[in-house]
Amino acid sequence: MSTTAGVPSLPEVVARVLAREPRAVGRALRLVDDGGPASHALLKALWPHTGKAWVLGVTGNPGAGKSTLCDRLIAAYRARGVRVGVVAVDPSSPYTGGAILGDRIRMSRHATDDGVFIRSLATRGHLGGLTRSARDVVRVLDACGYEVVIVETVGVGQDELEITHTAHSTLVVMAPGMGDEVQAIKAGILECADVFAVNKADREGADTTVRDLELMISLGNESIRALSKARGHATHGMADGFVQPPTPASPDTLPERWTPPITRCVASRGDGVDDVVAALDRHRAWIDGTEAGRARRRARLGEQVRESLREALIEAAVGDLGQQLDEAVRAVDERAVDPYTAIERLVAAFRAR
Amino acid sequence: MSTTAGVPSLPEVVARVLAREPRAVGRALRLVDDGGPASHALLKALWPHTGKAWVLGVTGNPGAGKSTLCDRLIAAYRARGVRVGVVAVDPSSPYTGGAILGDRIRMSRHATDDGVFIRSLATRGHLGGLTRSARDVVRVLDACGYEVVIVETVGVGQDELEITHTAHSTLVVMAPGMGDEVQAIKAGILECADVFAVNKADREGADTTVRDLELMISLGNESIRALSKARGHATHGMADGFVQPPTPASPDTLPERWTPPITRCVASRGDGVDDVVAALDRHRAWIDGTEAGRARRRARLGEQVRESLREALIEAAVGDLGQQLDEAVRAVDERAVDPYTAIERLVAAFRAR
Repeated sequence: MSTTAGVPSLPEVVARVLAREPRAVGRALRLVDDGGPASHALLKALWPHTGKAWVLGVTGNPGAGKSTLCDRLIAAYRARGVRVGVVAVDPSSPYTGGAILGDRIRMSRHATDDGVFIRSLATRGHLGGLTRSARDVVRVLDACGYEVVIVETVGVGQDELEITHTAHSTLVVMAPGMGDEVQAIKAGILECADVFAVNKADREGADTTVRDLELMISLGNESIRALSKARGHATHGMADGFVQPPTPASPDTLPERWTPPITRCVASRGDGVDDVVAALDRHRAWIDGTEAGRARRRARLGEQVRESLREALIEAAVGDLGQQLDEAVRAVDERAVDPYTAIERLVAAFRAR
Repeated sequence: MSTTAGVPSLPEVVARVLAREPRAVGRALRLVDDGGPASHALLKALWPHTGKAWVLGVTGNPGAGKSTLCDRLIAAYRARGVRVGVVAVDPSSPYTGGAILGDRIRMSRHATDDGVFIRSLATRGHLGGLTRSARDVVRVLDACGYEVVIVETVGVGQDELEITHTAHSTLVVMAPGMGDEVQAIKAGILECADVFAVNKADREGADTTVRDLELMISLGNESIRALSKARGHATHGMADGFVQPPTPASPDTLPERWTPPITRCVASRGDGVDDVVAALDRHRAWIDGTEAGRARRRARLGEQVRESLREALIEAAVGDLGQQLDEAVRAVDERAVDPYTAIERLVAAFRAR
């Protein structure tokens, strides 16, 4: 993307991105990160070249050892000759950028391997920007021919849950004795976990963590539904055929229903990583090779589309309403109007334009 | 709300809620929790009676001792004869409902005090439902005459940040040696913290936690801005006049700019709780008594209005588009259309209706 040659045309940019020219890829990712019309034009042009990557979400609490395990996974996939893209979603403040956490540094042994591309994203303020950004970056890396794209997120909050809708398979990493047993039961973890890895499995408390997970999984969908119904809670987003009491399955046949396997590893030494990789391979095969797996993928896509729609709507509304929005805030602040009426008027004004 | 008398009229419901009739309040909260037109009608009718409560957000990581400290705060405000409402936002799965965490149980000594009302909310799926629910429940409790409403959230994720926009003052609770030093630097904590409480201050590592916080605060707004700009990140939502290097302020005069004070306490024994309460009182006086404080409150209200607008838009769109949305998901899944074009069409269809 030479500056002397002027602004390259969209087809030129696309060609260079598909050829994985580092500067073109970097520029495309910055463009996509910023969002807006130019980003959309590029993403539309890249779209026909996407859909080949397998997207692996890796989530878990800080300190569980996600980055160390990701490092091992990258090495495992590279050993198969597969190109790996990594999107590290780090919701830390601008301070850190990985410098304090140090996570990114641990991955740096892949820095000189041009079959590995690592992109860090920071939190982008409000209104779902992070999820959109992560999803679009995944699509660029997919178009570039990274056959595995790992999306690593910190924690298991709502944002992270949304980001897992981008993934075909989600690995939840836990460590013993970190309060993970309780954290694990946080919202949606059963909905998003396809494989559990209990890392630092040589530490005291690993058995407890595994048992807690087994209990949680064995209670299964029906119990969750019954409980939810009793409490009047929505079970929105909980796909059918996901959680059930574990049943021993033949390793050769794909199960009709997927039960998240619990693997153990010590990522720092590389122990047990093969088991994690095997469990992920099996989930990938299930997603691709069974009706229930395909239905699950479609359900996640549905969530993605709804999230994109929400973002597109608020973006368009904030852009269109402009001053009217500020005036509404002032009116509510001065108690001249209640917020419910104010919002109804804003929605109507947006639709009438 | 007698069943023999038929369905009570809206003015009747409002009168009973304002009179704090327990059954009417409970019914109003369930209605508000469910959302929808009936909820909006009630909230509009209650709106003229709101705006009197001081809303205190309490957030921090699991294990920091938020609930124990909240328990102490409730007791302190009750000792002043003030009615206290509590909205406990617990993003744990339907399993827990506080039973595993046990947090709610600790507050139960206030269960027989009719000057205290505690309402738990669980995560409500996607699309910002939790934030909306928390905000509306706060408004009902405000209308009911609870003069202090405490909103307790677990963790410091995006959802929790949004919920703090509901609060006039936000207390961030930390504990030494829990990886909090790193967690503290997570997205937005500087934006939302008005007062820090380092709980379990008798434990090893408390000094380190305090020092880390001091450093973070002293780096201040300008450094964050500079860093953010250098990295091309938005600093959206970072109100002016918020963070600056701590300057010793006379305890009698309100500072022009607010620097989050760092208090220490051992909530389990009640030590230092007075200092936390005093710091919160001072922040409340600043919010009400200075131009910068009022500007800060308006900025948070602006965030609230934008969030409400986002929720109202997606709710209206999902309702209106119905089948068209499902068809779009199928088309993207079958790769008949790229998701960007599909979303553009959905937005246009929504606006054209």
